[in-house]
Amino acid sequence: MFNFKNDYNYIGHENILNALIKYQNEPNEVYGLDTHSINAKNLIKKHLKNENVDIHFIVGGTLVNKTVISHVLRPYEAVICADTGHINVHETGAIESTGHKVLTVNNNDGKVNISDIAKCVKTHTDEHMVLPKIVYISESTETGSVYSRDELRELYNFCHSNNLYLFIDGARLGVALATNLVSLDDLAKFSDVFYIGGAKNGALLGEALVIVNDALKENFRFSIKQNGGMYSKGFIAGIQFEELFKDDLFIALGNNANECSRYLYDELVKRGIEMQQRCITNQIFPIISNKVYEKLRKIVSFELWEDLGDRKVIRLVCGFKTKKEEVSLFIEELDSILI
Amino acid sequence: MFNFKNDYNYIGHENILNALIKYQNEPNEVYGLDTHSINAKNLIKKHLKNENVDIHFIVGGTLVNKTVISHVLRPYEAVICADTGHINVHETGAIESTGHKVLTVNNNDGKVNISDIAKCVKTHTDEHMVLPKIVYISESTETGSVYSRDELRELYNFCHSNNLYLFIDGARLGVALATNLVSLDDLAKFSDVFYIGGAKNGALLGEALVIVNDALKENFRFSIKQNGGMYSKGFIAGIQFEELFKDDLFIALGNNANECSRYLYDELVKRGIEMQQRCITNQIFPIISNKVYEKLRKIVSFELWEDLGDRKVIRLVCGFKTKKEEVSLFIEELDSILI
Amino acid sequence: MFNFKNDYNYIGHENILNALIKYQNEPNEVYGLDTHSINAKNLIKKHLKNENVDIHFIVGGTLVNKTVISHVLRPYEAVICADTGHINVHETGAIESTGHKVLTVNNNDGKVNISDIAKCVKTHTDEHMVLPKIVYISESTETGSVYSRDELRELYNFCHSNNLYLFIDGARLGVALATNLVSLDDLAKFSDVFYIGGAKNGALLGEALVIVNDALKENFRFSIKQNGGMYSKGFIAGIQFEELFKDDLFIALGNNANECSRYLYDELVKRGIEMQQRCITNQIFPIISNKVYEKLRKIVSFELWEDLGDRKVIRLVCGFKTKKEEVSLFIEELDSILI
Amino acid sequence: MFNFKNDYNYIGHENILNALIKYQNEPNEVYGLDTHSINAKNLIKKHLKNENVDIHFIVGGTLVNKTVISHVLRPYEAVICADTGHINVHETGAIESTGHKVLTVNNNDGKVNISDIAKCVKTHTDEHMVLPKIVYISESTETGSVYSRDELRELYNFCHSNNLYLFIDGARLGVALATNLVSLDDLAKFSDVFYIGGAKNGALLGEALVIVNDALKENFRFSIKQNGGMYSKGFIAGIQFEELFKDDLFIALGNNANECSRYLYDELVKRGIEMQQRCITNQIFPIISNKVYEKLRKIVSFELWEDLGDRKVIRLVCGFKTKKEEVSLFIEELDSILI
Repeated sequence: MFNFKNDYNYIGHENILNALIKYQNEPNEVYGLDTHSINAKNLIKKHLKNENVDIHFIVGGTLVNKTVISHVLRPYEAVICADTGHINVHETGAIESTGHKVLTVNNNDGKVNISDIAKCVKTHTDEHMVLPKIVYISESTETGSVYSRDELRELYNFCHSNNLYLFIDGARLGVALATNLVSLDDLAKFSDVFYIGGAKNGALLGEALVIVNDALKENFRFSIKQNGGMYSKGFIAGIQFEELFKDDLFIALGNNANECSRYLYDELVKRGIEMQQRCITNQIFPIISNKVYEKLRKIVSFELWEDLGDRKVIRLVCGFKTKKEEVSLFIEELDSILI
Repeated sequence: MFNFKNDYNYIGHENILNALIKYQNEPNEVYGLDTHSINAKNLIKKHLKNENVDIHFIVGGTLVNKTVISHVLRPYEAVICADTGHINVHETGAIESTGHKVLTVNNNDGKVNISDIAKCVKTHTDEHMVLPKIVYISESTETGSVYSRDELRELYNFCHSNNLYLFIDGARLGVALATNLVSLDDLAKFSDVFYIGGAKNGALLGEALVIVNDALKENFRFSIKQNGGMYSKGFIAGIQFEELFKDDLFIALGNNANECSRYLYDELVKRGIEMQQRCITNQIFPIISNKVYEKLRKIVSFELWEDLGDRKVIRLVCGFKTKKEEVSLFIEELDSILI
Repeated sequence: MFNFKNDYNYIGHENILNALIKYQNEPNEVYGLDTHSINAKNLIKKHLKNENVDIHFIVGGTLVNKTVISHVLRPYEAVICADTGHINVHETGAIESTGHKVLTVNNNDGKVNISDIAKCVKTHTDEHMVLPKIVYISESTETGSVYSRDELRELYNFCHSNNLYLFIDGARLGVALATNLVSLDDLAKFSDVFYIGGAKNGALLGEALVIVNDALKENFRFSIKQNGGMYSKGFIAGIQFEELFKDDLFIALGNNANECSRYLYDELVKRGIEMQQRCITNQIFPIISNKVYEKLRKIVSFELWEDLGDRKVIRLVCGFKTKKEEVSLFIEELDSILI
Repeated sequence: MFNFKNDYNYIGHENILNALIKYQNEPNEVYGLDTHSINAKNLIKKHLKNENVDIHFIVGGTLVNKTVISHVLRPYEAVICADTGHINVHETGAIESTGHKVLTVNNNDGKVNISDIAKCVKTHTDEHMVLPKIVYISESTETGSVYSRDELRELYNFCHSNNLYLFIDGARLGVALATNLVSLDDLAKFSDVFYIGGAKNGALLGEALVIVNDALKENFRFSIKQNGGMYSKGFIAGIQFEELFKDDLFIALGNNANECSRYLYDELVKRGIEMQQRCITNQIFPIISNKVYEKLRKIVSFELWEDLGDRKVIRLVCGFKTKKEEVSLFIEELDSILI
């Protein structure tokens, strides 16, 4: 059975596992105050070309989103995101559970339009309505698209002209960076706070939150603890990010995922299969007949994205473990199905 | 430098690390729906001698506490705990952040008295006050003491006669079980919900929550997700609890911690050092002069527990990695200090 | 200056003020446990033709909405409403501040469509999303429309077939009842919980919440108190609802507001003024040129509803104090403007 | 039947009721933006001898407490109060429902000691604990005692030296001011935010919140609305505070309550009845035998404060409506009981 279901179904990269074996007999400071964490933060700062940031390792993406948004907002303030945004759809109301409204704007292949945000801000006129204060986007987005350097700059400038913070969810930042459409130091220049996702790019767990804007830094560890995201064995996160950010492993893993997806995409298109979106990163969305769908389910694990009635959109994802040979073999089997 | 600072400063037990290496090339179902997690739950159920429980692996202890308490309580209901309770003191108001009051009763070596809880319930008479609904205890407690089987049964019976749920925080359950004062199946009999702490007993992370009372089971995964405790790579938790609960590794690790602590305790007492509490599990609390304190700091890592002015209470903890030889060597160096 | 700005800009009906004068020398039980409140509840129950309901007087509409929704929902559950719903737009995120997501469906002249709600329920499939549990509507709606008896019955039946509660915001219930499209006993039959708005129909303050569904009744006074809606001088609410529900004053006041609005509407239409919506209750929405708008502002107080660029939609509202003569005089002055 | 049960069981002072009658035919701006509210605020500012404050009328005391505390605190911050504090005991966890821990210190006749607060601050050392940020006191306190001008100044200075805000609950401020131990301008000098209670001193409802510290003023109306405390007919609050603050009616009503209580207290003491506390304001706490208690219940309405087993502490309260003749008549009847 082939597996293109998602990018977080393998334990983690071998370098990381080997490092855990290597360090198993050393005692550490706890709660993220250990030397591995300090070292990993310094490695990340080099990539950001910015020493004046605060970095925190947090155990999961939903926790990062909850913690950042509830730390930044006053009770009556709200966050704006695309209607497809992860915080709007797939976190069981985690943001609202901290007391804040999520305002939505239409998405454009997973991305927000500045004009929609401007309109949202303009219609919130007085104290009978929430006050929009954060714009939340994902890089790469839920549908695999990427905000380019120029798009980020423009959005960031808009936000700052409108008294809004820009928060970037980087659960899949690795594949975005691997496109070269944007770089880590761009994120440090064009956002107030963002995170670098480990779990979807080779780590066992853990996300590296980067707070760029000084106004958001104070007492952040209190918020991490209250939200339950402070990892007692924080050194395990530190060790992993040390591995990911020395020798550019983080980019290399994103690159592997993207290349495998691009290869798969091209082979499918050659065979006349329609796509719902272009392939930018590591997710592709073929539209197939119900008949092909039924056959496919028997040879490969994937997600049903949308049921169109007579046809189905499926999602195929490559990850840090995917091998080109695996894709080739899949294409071969697929050919026998498509006949 | 010796290290008796806490029981979560090493990565994890070698069996667990080896299992991670072993399974690294296998894809898994995500969010805890994988075969390792299913297998681990079955192993735990055997130890509980109860098949009719729901088990969930959650990424951290504070998250378990938040999730259980906010899932169980109606908005106006409250939880009662010892004034020393972890949720009262050391979770940065995590319970209150979910909207609930934490009512406290005096502790007796870390444990609650039934008479105090009865009084607390009795004084909450009407709708101008919160309604007590959960009793929260830790097994073992913050000070290393243990509720015996009989004590648990009595407390549980009291709770059920008074329309209260009993929730047991088992962050340090391993060392409690290793005392033989209480067993896993006792917990399944004498509580409504409890958890088995992994991170302080050999795991890299992860706590196994056991919901015994049917009334608390419905839709619990919604609460886990909303609180941010649903581990995307849940299979990593599953693999760890498989290791911990086959061949009784979980008890063995608790036992090692207790034996090392007992040895250390006895040696210190022999040398005339006063103790704040008896040694029941893996934490001991020597009372030392400021002069000894200053010397000790140079050879061993530990926590200052309480400053009495002319003397100090310190905490020494042994864990799954502690070796008796290490304790012996420490005692030798200590002797040279005490002279 | 004429005043058609809203229906809550006068202190209250003279009968109510006279009753306050009359009872000023009598001491009362407090927190709603007084004889006036008991009497008023009995009067309301007669109108409902249902003795088996719980009635609570609460100090304001936003408080009722917060209290009901947070009392009914489990933490991961959500409320569905029209995108124009008061709780979605005009309560500064009050519902989200209690931890719950507000899911929206398109409105149809302020009303929800069952098919949209069915779709919303269907797309919320698992624990990564909130669980819809309440449908919230307003009777009359934000735009003055009314759900008829048959529409309410159909919606209620749909809700109960889909494990949803129906909650009706009756801030402007008086004018809805005055249309005869629906009656108080219909609401008691076709909803789980609803409220009867006092402040917009002659009272100084206060809303009468009616809980029909037994499952929602328990400990409700705890929720009122926690949310801050328990009126210490509850007898003042009781006295007012006594006045409103003896001799059908409540319906009579709604009727006055509707008749004045209908008269105003007809006169405007006669003069060729376009309307955004039909006139069902006490709100009308004329579309006027910017030139007329500027002239109008000088002779009458009203709200700008929507700026269409070259024209404007304004809102004119009649209330319990509006007199037909006032409308006639306004029409006269308007004629001189329109020339 | 005599009535000394509490100070909020009568509708309101006749001047206020007459003003409501007088203004019933005038339309007003809503949500507190009317001329009565503006005028009332100016009257209050004169008494405060401080123009640079923000004043808001809010519908109830619990709402003021929730709104102020949740507006001021960051999510991980906490409020300190006496264990007898209203927010700790009698608001059904309203503060915790906004996400914040209430830290308690021992009370000294209802008042806090600075040394206890200092200790509380000192023991909250790091991000594993909440961060104390507000000190909440009541003036007068739950037991009728009063912080003098000097006590307030000292507490305020301590707070500001320790990065704490001082918030004063003035639900019973009227009787405190009537003692002359403290004045309104003292409150404006020695607190960051406080409120002037209307409902317990002659008003139908409504509390006047005074924000002194500039740092707490921004966007406060958003918080009022979100918490449900924004009175749609805010002009009714405005009219009442106009009456209370012209010609010093507010002080006069407090004075009447205190004088009646003092008279009652003295007469009881003359008759050898022991008191739990001194009489400072309008509450007195006689300790009586169970036998007297049973007889008393038949002639007067009061609250049981504490059951001592063989004796009982009761609470007798005088208010703005109490007349000395009423007290005299009660004493006469009491004499026949005591024989």
